Amino acid sequence: MNDSLSIVLFSGTADKLHAAATLAAGAAAMGRPVNILLQYWALDAFRSERIEIDHGLAYDSMAAYASRPVKGTAAIPWLETFRMAKELGEMQILACAGSLEVLGIDVTTLDPLVDASGGIATFLLAAEGGQVLFI
Amino acid sequence: MNDSLSIVLFSGTADKLHAAATLAAGAAAMGRPVNILLQYWALDAFRSERIEIDHGLAYDSMAAYASRPVKGTAAIPWLETFRMAKELGEMQILACAGSLEVLGIDVTTLDPLVDASGGIATFLLAAEGGQVLFI
Amino acid sequence: MNDSLSIVLFSGTADKLHAAATLAAGAAAMGRPVNILLQYWALDAFRSERIEIDHGLAYDSMAAYASRPVKGTAAIPWLETFRMAKELGEMQILACAGSLEVLGIDVTTLDPLVDASGGIATFLLAAEGGQVLFI
Repeated sequence: MNDSLSIVLFSGTADKLHAAATLAAGAAAMGRPVNILLQYWALDAFRSERIEIDHGLAYDSMAAYASRPVKGTAAIPWLETFRMAKELGEMQILACAGSLEVLGIDVTTLDPLVDASGGIATFLLAAEGGQVLFI
Repeated sequence: MNDSLSIVLFSGTADKLHAAATLAAGAAAMGRPVNILLQYWALDAFRSERIEIDHGLAYDSMAAYASRPVKGTAAIPWLETFRMAKELGEMQILACAGSLEVLGIDVTTLDPLVDASGGIATFLLAAEGGQVLFI
Repeated sequence: MNDSLSIVLFSGTADKLHAAATLAAGAAAMGRPVNILLQYWALDAFRSERIEIDHGLAYDSMAAYASRPVKGTAAIPWLETFRMAKELGEMQILACAGSLEVLGIDVTTLDPLVDASGGIATFLLAAEGGQVLFI
């Protein structure tokens, strides 16, 4: 077993992107290699021309949402936290080739934080022997 | 540590089912044993009489959803990808006994891809020493 | 590798809280150490003054939701299952310090099941070498 942390990042809401970024930054700061695979909505969130917009919240709590609608989700610093993670340590961000095709996105239109496109096998090999999360 | 990949599959939307299926197929193609536990909405998605309907999308991106409503989610080939995974390698699909009870579903009404029903302990034992995802 | 099971618990709906609790209880019953980090909506769900309300369902299945609206989600016994997990074995529940700040919640207002507040690094250290889920 190695100490890498790998994340299949599927969701594109600001709260889940932020949760992923803080875990990535924490692991990177501890010297652990971090591998991220962007799929579906997370891939869409990394499109350069829309990356600064408000990405909203997951509907993962009707009760909380009703009682305390969170204002200013545009201010949740998920992108800055990913940038920090990259400065803190070794983090690779792959855009899932299959998701690029389904969504009709060209990898060159993504934020420069994204290192390359790649398939599931590439990601699984990088993740081998470490911990993996799906977010 | 072994190289098995285990997935607690909770969600029943076409995009998340597809993400799970592609990870399962990728791991199976690499010769890794795959264990899947169907809970709640994923269990509902595997009911034979409704398995072909459009299972919709996760609300995991308000921003993306607003800007590019994905058409034809009924065409996301999650079921075919699971079938392929089973042909490619060793994949076991368990229906969670507790979820069957909560949802009032009989295991015999599920798609034949489902191998058996079982509890959390059975799944955790099968998953022991490998990687686990919750989707 | 050790046999601990760690869960980043992000979601605050009754079905996902219950899925997390059953996995925690199953692992605890098998003698495995369990570590839980409460973030965002799960943190909100553990506020003492609102812990008994109906926490609703994840929108993780439009199709299932339309065909079988689940009644009485207030009755999903997620809190009791977490209490049982703590009696069955060794389970630590941490409130994520960052999320406490974002949501403006004081750790003393959370249910006594929550052991302490802590950061990502504390959680990652506790989770080291074991299996990790994001729910």
